[in-house]
Amino acid sequence: MDMMEKTRSERLLQWLRDAHAMEAEATTMLTAQASRLDNYPQLRQRIEEHIRETKQQSQLLESCLERLGGSPSTAKNVIASGMAAMHAAGNSAMSDEVVKGMGISYAFEHVEISAYRSLILAAEAAGDTETARICRDEILPQEVAMAQWLYEHQDSVVQNFLQREQEPDVQAKR
Amino acid sequence: MDMMEKTRSERLLQWLRDAHAMEAEATTMLTAQASRLDNYPQLRQRIEEHIRETKQQSQLLESCLERLGGSPSTAKNVIASGMAAMHAAGNSAMSDEVVKGMGISYAFEHVEISAYRSLILAAEAAGDTETARICRDEILPQEVAMAQWLYEHQDSVVQNFLQREQEPDVQAKR
Repeated sequence: MDMMEKTRSERLLQWLRDAHAMEAEATTMLTAQASRLDNYPQLRQRIEEHIRETKQQSQLLESCLERLGGSPSTAKNVIASGMAAMHAAGNSAMSDEVVKGMGISYAFEHVEISAYRSLILAAEAAGDTETARICRDEILPQEVAMAQWLYEHQDSVVQNFLQREQEPDVQAKR
Repeated sequence: MDMMEKTRSERLLQWLRDAHAMEAEATTMLTAQASRLDNYPQLRQRIEEHIRETKQQSQLLESCLERLGGSPSTAKNVIASGMAAMHAAGNSAMSDEVVKGMGISYAFEHVEISAYRSLILAAEAAGDTETARICRDEILPQEVAMAQWLYEHQDSVVQNFLQREQEPDVQAKR
C-alpha cells in the first residue's frame, strides 16, 4: 500500500513539473507573439492578459510542488519537445504569421487543457485535493476561456488578414 | 482587380498546400502512435479510423489543388515546423506515452480545425465555392469529431493508465 501511494505521488509530481515547464514555454511563446502583433490590437491585448494569467498559474503550480516537497527548480529541465517546437513555429517569418500564430496558440491551449485534466485525475488518485481544486477551479477555466476566445475571434482576425493582404502598403502578417 | 484576384488565389493555393502537408504529417504521427498502443485497443482503433479519414482528406485537398492548377507535389516541401515537432514529441520514450500522445493528438486536431476554418474563408474570398464546401462539409466535421472523441475518452484512458501504473508486471505507457 505504501508503495502504491508513493508511485501515485511520483506521477503527480512529474505531471506538476511537466505543467510548470509547459507554462514557462507558454509565457515565452505568447510574449514573442504579442510583441510582434502591431496591427491586431484586440488579439494582442487578449494574449497579454493570458500571459499574466500564465505567470499566476506558474506560481500556483510552484505552491503545489512545494507543498508536496518537490522542487519547482527541477522543472526547468523538463520541457517537452512538442512545446519547444510549437514555440519555434510561432516565431518563424511566415507571410501569414498572425493566422498561423493563432492556430498554434489555439493548439497549445488544448495541450494545456489535456494536461490539466490529467493532472486533476492524478491529484485525486494521490489524495491531493488541494492540487485537484487548484487545477480544476483556478487554472483549467482560464485555459478553456482562452481557447474559446481564440475560437470566437479567429474568423474576424482571418478576414482582417485576408483584407489587409489586398491593400497596397499595408502590412497584413502581424 | 486582376491583381487582387490573383493574390487571393495565391493565398488559397498556399493554404491548400499547407493543409496537404499537415495531413501528411498527421498520417505519419498517427501511424506511429497507433502501432505502439498495445494496451489501449479502443484508442488504437479510433486512431486507425482517423488515419483512413486523413488519407481521404489528402486526396480531397489534391483534387482542390489540381482544379486550381496547383501541384500537390510541391506540398511536400511545405511542412510547418510546429507539425514536425509535435510528431517528434509523440514518438519519444516517455513513461506516460499514451497520455502525452493523446494530448498531442488533441492539440493537432485543433491545429487542423483552425487551419480548415481559415481555408474556408480564403476559398470564399477567392470565389472557390467547391473548396469551401469540401473543407466545411467533408473535412472539418471529421476533425471536430476526432477532437470530440479524444476529449470524451481522455478521462477513461488516463484512469486506466494510472491504474496500470500501480500493477506489477503490467505495462502502462502504451
